[in-house]
Amino acid sequence: MKRRTWFGAAAATLAPLALGGCASPAENSRQTTATGLPALMGTGDLGVIIERADGALTFVNTSSCTSIGRVNGLGDLSHASVVFSRDERYAYVFGRDGGLTKVDLLTQAITGRVMQAGNSIGGAINADGTLVAAQNYTPGGVKIFRADSLELLADLPALAKDGKRSRVVGLADLPQNRFIYSLFDTDSICIADCSDISAPRIQTLEGIGRQPYDAMLTPNGRHYIAGLFGEDGLALVDLWDEKPTARRILSGYGRGEKPLPVYKMPHLRGWTVAGQYAYLPAIGRHEVLVVDTHTWREAARIPVAGQPVFVMARPDGRQVWVNFSVPDYDRIQVIDTPSQRVVATLQPGKAVMHMEFAPRGQHVWISCRDSDQVKIYDTHTLREHASISVKAPSGIFFTSRAQRMGL
Amino acid sequence: MKRRTWFGAAAATLAPLALGGCASPAENSRQTTATGLPALMGTGDLGVIIERADGALTFVNTSSCTSIGRVNGLGDLSHASVVFSRDERYAYVFGRDGGLTKVDLLTQAITGRVMQAGNSIGGAINADGTLVAAQNYTPGGVKIFRADSLELLADLPALAKDGKRSRVVGLADLPQNRFIYSLFDTDSICIADCSDISAPRIQTLEGIGRQPYDAMLTPNGRHYIAGLFGEDGLALVDLWDEKPTARRILSGYGRGEKPLPVYKMPHLRGWTVAGQYAYLPAIGRHEVLVVDTHTWREAARIPVAGQPVFVMARPDGRQVWVNFSVPDYDRIQVIDTPSQRVVATLQPGKAVMHMEFAPRGQHVWISCRDSDQVKIYDTHTLREHASISVKAPSGIFFTSRAQRMGL
Repeated sequence: MKRRTWFGAAAATLAPLALGGCASPAENSRQTTATGLPALMGTGDLGVIIERADGALTFVNTSSCTSIGRVNGLGDLSHASVVFSRDERYAYVFGRDGGLTKVDLLTQAITGRVMQAGNSIGGAINADGTLVAAQNYTPGGVKIFRADSLELLADLPALAKDGKRSRVVGLADLPQNRFIYSLFDTDSICIADCSDISAPRIQTLEGIGRQPYDAMLTPNGRHYIAGLFGEDGLALVDLWDEKPTARRILSGYGRGEKPLPVYKMPHLRGWTVAGQYAYLPAIGRHEVLVVDTHTWREAARIPVAGQPVFVMARPDGRQVWVNFSVPDYDRIQVIDTPSQRVVATLQPGKAVMHMEFAPRGQHVWISCRDSDQVKIYDTHTLREHASISVKAPSGIFFTSRAQRMGL
Repeated sequence: MKRRTWFGAAAATLAPLALGGCASPAENSRQTTATGLPALMGTGDLGVIIERADGALTFVNTSSCTSIGRVNGLGDLSHASVVFSRDERYAYVFGRDGGLTKVDLLTQAITGRVMQAGNSIGGAINADGTLVAAQNYTPGGVKIFRADSLELLADLPALAKDGKRSRVVGLADLPQNRFIYSLFDTDSICIADCSDISAPRIQTLEGIGRQPYDAMLTPNGRHYIAGLFGEDGLALVDLWDEKPTARRILSGYGRGEKPLPVYKMPHLRGWTVAGQYAYLPAIGRHEVLVVDTHTWREAARIPVAGQPVFVMARPDGRQVWVNFSVPDYDRIQVIDTPSQRVVATLQPGKAVMHMEFAPRGQHVWISCRDSDQVKIYDTHTLREHASISVKAPSGIFFTSRAQRMGL
């Protein structure tokens, strides 16, 4: 079983082909219509980049690694996030100003827009693609819309005991037309069953810990983990339990012990499971926490170059990429997961905001806001592969998200 | 942390919506062209069903759960398999007769076809979508084509020591323009690096065990496992090792001990990893083997209703679905993975050939060849959700495969 032989160029080869990793932009411009858009186009390799300053989206193609269009008029897109219809044709954009905008990636036009709250922080879409949910700060609560028409179907107020609406964070889709979310102001986690949208049933887990500020669903949809701003630890719910309950994990990991000033809240949706371990940003500390998902205990801490914001696994779990809050936000670090060591520090540009991996992981796209650039790296060579000019880019979202839970 | 409260219909609700899980077929027929096809259509919720008797494909939409068209002229489609371009527009169909056919899901037409071998058994596509590889029985070897034009780029002959070509099985894509495959006649596993397609470099691991007959890549691309027909055990390669080698696992699991007659070879590409465990069909035995992926030792055996053919995990890993060879091929069994028990036995129709899950797992599509039906089940309620008439359906393939390794 141990003999290995190498044949250099052992095969009969027949024709040359440039393998640049991305097709030439020209290939994507064939068969265009009067509007300049292709008459027919698959949507599996499309994506959008948020231009926060201009309230605009840049459309991108991840095969050609190029921008292919732009749309504006989406309002305040600071902290905006995006989900996609399951046919990967439409993007639903949740703006900070409470705007929910539906954008057609094929016509590159806005097809619907509602102002659904005063201050919003993201959304989710159910597996069947019929319901879009938005989580809101002002007023608090969750609103649920028809995905096709953006008609409001249900308003889940998320009331605290004093009758005020709580700010909602950490919204994610669950199977069977359910959504899960956390209430910052009431220390609770809710599961809303929207199977009968005329009468949603809401289960509330109370006393989960102080001030859940964001949350994530593991890629298999089993575990929901809420970060706690008000105390040292996190809340964990095992959704495969017949009667899910919340329990505390990682109590005393250091959040409250000697907190550094927190320059930017980490984004927990970026929390990452790779193999047996979850990789979490330690709030206010220059560390990534490694948690064993069998025991939900801390397995290691990896020192990094700043306060982590996004901690994201390459789809195969072999690497974890980390970006940082100000003042260290010109850097990216790459963690090798088998050795749990930082193996590379990159400086892709100024003010790194977000990262998005190609679905099979060969590339990562990195938004460098103050460089007006999106840099595309080869994740195997760690070399720059391409770059795209985008004005003040922030979030990057690819259509392949449509096929995954919790994104 | 333990209090749980239920609010029946606690929310203000605003409008009714039928949540059938699939939109009505009418929704998909709007905006049609003269050909009856939609003028613009996303491709994230499309798929194809192999009609083996007629050499045809039925096109399906997984949102409406309907068939939306048909194309024929694809030759002998017994044992056919399909990969998709990364834009999810094109299907590459590998026929048993050696035909490789490129089909446009938007125009529902064949756009390219080559007879590339006398007897072929499947294929793969690289992450960048530029290279399509076909594995062949007669003559043996692997051929590599340009994905856009189907131009032959390389012919990897896979020679045995006696100079004859070996039959090739278990082909899968690896990162960095590499492919991995097994040679049935030479007891070896090859990794072909096609970064420079004019001079592919082939690494061969020899003496891996007798007669590898199929193989699978774990979803993270780390482990390649070849089933051995000629002996009691399997060959495992850890592709994250700096110098990958093959080692034997599960020696003596029973294949060679008291073999039952084997009515149909299991399909190893269906092998499944769910959480920490892999679920494998035991050749010739009425058992599913459960293997701990940390130690690669047998952890359990689950008795099932027949000789397993496909053993497939729902995308969240909570369930494993199993179909069987003749004479038990009118049944499907569902394994609950936390308890590792069979929790349901279904009889969807006659001669169950294949299963395919919706990408987020809410539905499974099941081809019942001798009933001329594809049945769609809700995987949570285990009830039939919809059914589609298709003539002698076999393989079912959804475009979301484009975004995953090893499929």
